Amino acid sequence: TSPAPHRGARAVGLGGVFPPMPTPFLPDQTIAWDHLATNVRAWSDVPFRAPYRRGHGYGASHSDPYKLISGTRDSNLGSAHQGIPWVVEGSNGEYVYLSPEERVELVQRVRDFLPSDSDKLVLAGSGCESTRDTIVMSQRMAEAGADAVMVVTPSYYKAAMKDKALHAHFTAVADNCPVPVILYSVPAFTVIDLSLDVIIDLAHHPNIIGLKESGGDITKIGSVVHQTQHLDFQVLAGSASFLLATLQIGGVGGVCAVANVLGEAVCELQRLCKEGRMEEAVTLQRKLIAPNTAVTKTFGIPGLKQVMDWKGLYGGPCRLPLQPLSTQETDNLRQVFLDAGYL
Amino acid sequence: TSPAPHRGARAVGLGGVFPPMPTPFLPDQTIAWDHLATNVRAWSDVPFRAPYRRGHGYGASHSDPYKLISGTRDSNLGSAHQGIPWVVEGSNGEYVYLSPEERVELVQRVRDFLPSDSDKLVLAGSGCESTRDTIVMSQRMAEAGADAVMVVTPSYYKAAMKDKALHAHFTAVADNCPVPVILYSVPAFTVIDLSLDVIIDLAHHPNIIGLKESGGDITKIGSVVHQTQHLDFQVLAGSASFLLATLQIGGVGGVCAVANVLGEAVCELQRLCKEGRMEEAVTLQRKLIAPNTAVTKTFGIPGLKQVMDWKGLYGGPCRLPLQPLSTQETDNLRQVFLDAGYL
Amino acid sequence: TSPAPHRGARAVGLGGVFPPMPTPFLPDQTIAWDHLATNVRAWSDVPFRAPYRRGHGYGASHSDPYKLISGTRDSNLGSAHQGIPWVVEGSNGEYVYLSPEERVELVQRVRDFLPSDSDKLVLAGSGCESTRDTIVMSQRMAEAGADAVMVVTPSYYKAAMKDKALHAHFTAVADNCPVPVILYSVPAFTVIDLSLDVIIDLAHHPNIIGLKESGGDITKIGSVVHQTQHLDFQVLAGSASFLLATLQIGGVGGVCAVANVLGEAVCELQRLCKEGRMEEAVTLQRKLIAPNTAVTKTFGIPGLKQVMDWKGLYGGPCRLPLQPLSTQETDNLRQVFLDAGYL
Amino acid sequence: TSPAPHRGARAVGLGGVFPPMPTPFLPDQTIAWDHLATNVRAWSDVPFRAPYRRGHGYGASHSDPYKLISGTRDSNLGSAHQGIPWVVEGSNGEYVYLSPEERVELVQRVRDFLPSDSDKLVLAGSGCESTRDTIVMSQRMAEAGADAVMVVTPSYYKAAMKDKALHAHFTAVADNCPVPVILYSVPAFTVIDLSLDVIIDLAHHPNIIGLKESGGDITKIGSVVHQTQHLDFQVLAGSASFLLATLQIGGVGGVCAVANVLGEAVCELQRLCKEGRMEEAVTLQRKLIAPNTAVTKTFGIPGLKQVMDWKGLYGGPCRLPLQPLSTQETDNLRQVFLDAGYL
Repeated sequence: TSPAPHRGARAVGLGGVFPPMPTPFLPDQTIAWDHLATNVRAWSDVPFRAPYRRGHGYGASHSDPYKLISGTRDSNLGSAHQGIPWVVEGSNGEYVYLSPEERVELVQRVRDFLPSDSDKLVLAGSGCESTRDTIVMSQRMAEAGADAVMVVTPSYYKAAMKDKALHAHFTAVADNCPVPVILYSVPAFTVIDLSLDVIIDLAHHPNIIGLKESGGDITKIGSVVHQTQHLDFQVLAGSASFLLATLQIGGVGGVCAVANVLGEAVCELQRLCKEGRMEEAVTLQRKLIAPNTAVTKTFGIPGLKQVMDWKGLYGGPCRLPLQPLSTQETDNLRQVFLDAGYL
Repeated sequence: TSPAPHRGARAVGLGGVFPPMPTPFLPDQTIAWDHLATNVRAWSDVPFRAPYRRGHGYGASHSDPYKLISGTRDSNLGSAHQGIPWVVEGSNGEYVYLSPEERVELVQRVRDFLPSDSDKLVLAGSGCESTRDTIVMSQRMAEAGADAVMVVTPSYYKAAMKDKALHAHFTAVADNCPVPVILYSVPAFTVIDLSLDVIIDLAHHPNIIGLKESGGDITKIGSVVHQTQHLDFQVLAGSASFLLATLQIGGVGGVCAVANVLGEAVCELQRLCKEGRMEEAVTLQRKLIAPNTAVTKTFGIPGLKQVMDWKGLYGGPCRLPLQPLSTQETDNLRQVFLDAGYL
Repeated sequence: TSPAPHRGARAVGLGGVFPPMPTPFLPDQTIAWDHLATNVRAWSDVPFRAPYRRGHGYGASHSDPYKLISGTRDSNLGSAHQGIPWVVEGSNGEYVYLSPEERVELVQRVRDFLPSDSDKLVLAGSGCESTRDTIVMSQRMAEAGADAVMVVTPSYYKAAMKDKALHAHFTAVADNCPVPVILYSVPAFTVIDLSLDVIIDLAHHPNIIGLKESGGDITKIGSVVHQTQHLDFQVLAGSASFLLATLQIGGVGGVCAVANVLGEAVCELQRLCKEGRMEEAVTLQRKLIAPNTAVTKTFGIPGLKQVMDWKGLYGGPCRLPLQPLSTQETDNLRQVFLDAGYL
Repeated sequence: TSPAPHRGARAVGLGGVFPPMPTPFLPDQTIAWDHLATNVRAWSDVPFRAPYRRGHGYGASHSDPYKLISGTRDSNLGSAHQGIPWVVEGSNGEYVYLSPEERVELVQRVRDFLPSDSDKLVLAGSGCESTRDTIVMSQRMAEAGADAVMVVTPSYYKAAMKDKALHAHFTAVADNCPVPVILYSVPAFTVIDLSLDVIIDLAHHPNIIGLKESGGDITKIGSVVHQTQHLDFQVLAGSASFLLATLQIGGVGGVCAVANVLGEAVCELQRLCKEGRMEEAVTLQRKLIAPNTAVTKTFGIPGLKQVMDWKGLYGGPCRLPLQPLSTQETDNLRQVFLDAGYL
């Protein structure tokens, strides 16, 4: 396909907390499209973006987490996409287990499952190892309805993924992508921690609108916010465990695995923070850490899907080689959620 | 020496932010005792603990960062040591370069330099590789005037430093230490991250009163606070970079290298946080990250000592093999402080 | 596609040293098929497998590095594939940058470029992140002419890639692959070191015939050889740097990046080792380390392709985000080869 | 103490394999001097250095593993110390758990336990974190009878232990040490891998005579041997697991934990290698890996001491926080030695 350079006319505001949806599979390992539709409907009922109230609560006058960000920095708010981002094919969407065709189809289907007059935005993970594959995937996902793409650091040739290579990669993708690009750093999977210097440089690119930071280093998050404060650059926490700290230091929201199953609680955390009810926010944040850790670091995607099954969503199996939980692991997982009062 | 079991009658409140003092050396590598006295006097003028105002500001009703903590959990406040902790022989005190005799003498001298009616508490890093050495060192430091000891994880035999070994180590030290013990986890130096499980278990020990966490993982810090909330267990940030996030999630203070040179600013950050002036706190926190990173991760103790020299304190050389900064490094360091408006 | 279970009737002997061929690209990033053909012809002139002389030299009576290995362990030597393995789509084939279609076509083309009565075997890297993709890719590559497939450890979800998951993955692939499977462990890229226990277990699978070990841990290689000595399990060094040590401890050969440009020297090393001329072998081994390190760890695939250009082969550019060498890097690379007498 | 510059008149040949002796402790954690004497007598009966036969066997004409190395490179063989090195206070001597006084006394006692006309050389680990402590300790150990000192990389301030700092450290120690210095790199404990460049530079120092490399990277070992081949620089394997590979590539011997309990076997391995009986050597090398791994990586010093108890030596407890083996671990350890035929 010929390059489709970014149009810069669309704008995407990332404020809010929302779930990176797992991809549901049937026992035969094919994608469970029907269950996906059901899950999407269920998540649609969760108020992932709290009602906007300008000038109210902590941080409101400092930075508006729900402002719209234009790729061209001269945003035409009239045409901007304002709404709740939905993340498709983040790391816990098992995107590395999907074929290129499945990856595009998944974006198309999720777009179709959402009401046409919806305020839902689709953020699609389009990262591939090569720059050219990432460009093509980004373009195809945009055509399929993605409002923005989230691009993970390439990581196979680790020693070669120095600042220069990563800068060139993201720049080429952003130059050739018709929708805005969000940087995605997730060292637990890639063993690449996108450096502060590269992030700051890339934040000046008109088609790079934000960062999803899953490393959990609040110092780095604070540095990014500080050094991009005069740019329209939005930082998202990649986990509910450090959501409060991220919001407080100036991040605009979070992409939180646990929001797939505890959406109300994560939204409540955000709302409390917005309203400046910090003691309640702190209490809730601390309560969310253990369940969040259970469905991420400890039991991973199989754990998250197990809780989805308990919560009336369709979790189902992962694609292999991800293994189902053992009986013991399942019991431990249940206990964590029971202890926190979430089961 | 015969064991001197903890007496449990003293109490130490750790609330506040304070500097882990570097150990000054003369060009001949001996300890610069005179310069130490001068430095101590200079630091004494910094209000490292903000005036206590109960029931005022963020967090005040939730948890009192200045409450006194008794080793026995049935504190006799009348006999408690209430005051500003001074950290001697933390990692940036180059404690690994001091002989056992120097380590004890340093505690004695700092104690002596402080006014006798001082509200200053001396926290002394007493960690050694072996359990027995750590016990003896803790006892000797207590005799020399330490109000509490800070015990780093042993780390040479990394593969063997499993939860069981570390639990046994800290328990034995706390059992035999006449003053309260603070756990100290600093993975950047030890490559050992004291596990949440061990910390929670140890928090029940009557003579273990807190944790200095230098790893910067705000998720872990939140977990510790959450799971020890019914205990008198105090968590300190090991760096100014994540001080605000630590205070907000329920930590009581910080031991911050940069406070040696930017003491006023770090105290201001704490004060703003206490008073609920969060926007100003956030702005200041973000501004402090770059200078803090410069005197820790980037340029280390030689960098910190260089800034001390610029600030009218005595920095001087480090003990070898720590190298002095190159001209280029010195220029870069200066620029960071100039950019932040601190030079 | 329906599963094509391994037939077990073919046998593949892996003895010898041979190059994992880089995939040549044109400046427009498409595969340079013509240059590939030229390169293949050039490599065909290198005697990558030394003439077989039974009962001669070191190790000959101990283990025969050129014996044929049957997938079923009851090999029908008459139908066995005996010849020089050619590795397509190893890590320095940039396989992660190839589309599924390109991966299959590459195998087909290399097969076609080789003479029909050739003694050349094609080993194709068929690893994907998911088990199902790896099975399909292995089957398609077998249909395209691969004599065996080399399967890398999946690695994205690192924390989940425990022994059980990896064992299940390789077993499922081997169960469903019509040609023999070679395990491939390359921690520098995957940060997964396939464990000794899993390797030993998998060595009993009738369709798993060997291991390509790129980690360079000679202790592990020795352990694998020792614990599989009663099985027909072949261990290959993944680098020329530890080829001699691998051959001496009982490995059968090596897949060596540097053999793409110093094929004669690497073959000479193998020949000297076979003939028991150890002093000469040691001298040559030591001489090869620096050039090998230069085209692997230090300068990677861009470095290897640069030397190919110097040596009259077609190197050309890498796919992005792999960056071309800087002028300084090119000079350093040249110096390494000049110093070793190879330019 | 005033500096005691190296005299350069003594020479130490490191050829051979020998045990780094564990330090025996009584149940009360004090050093078990009597048991140490008994152990030393037992080890004295093991032929840790095979009879020297010039010009015979593999490698003999290439490099003589038993040649004497002079610190000044103009060795006066008449005054040289030729004998079997005994390593005191290597990592499995628990040296980090000994006081400075104990460290010196241990050298003195071992020296005294050996017959006065002994051909035994004492190599003492004198490494401390600071350069000045290492110099003083090296001098005191030399006075106490050490024939050479082995100096580990300082490691606490990891980020600061760059090439320049390590080069300066070892140079200062070697400049001020009255006996020859051996570099010691052991990344498993220090997380510092002494770089090839620094090693090659330091190999030119007249008072640095060798390297004990415990990292197990045979590529690095080969590089060191290659690049120091015109110097009198001796490389020792830090473990029996890669002893054969090290000897073959040109190393002169090994310091092997397992030699404390399987001294005869390790000596046999060296002898076979010397005599060019490579098949037998390979078989023995492979057999030794599992027991060696058991008393190092898997069960560490507590495992080694347990086997010593089984073998009629005094093992005894470790200093805490090193924990005794559990019953299950003890059983597993026993099985490894039973399986290998060594119990």
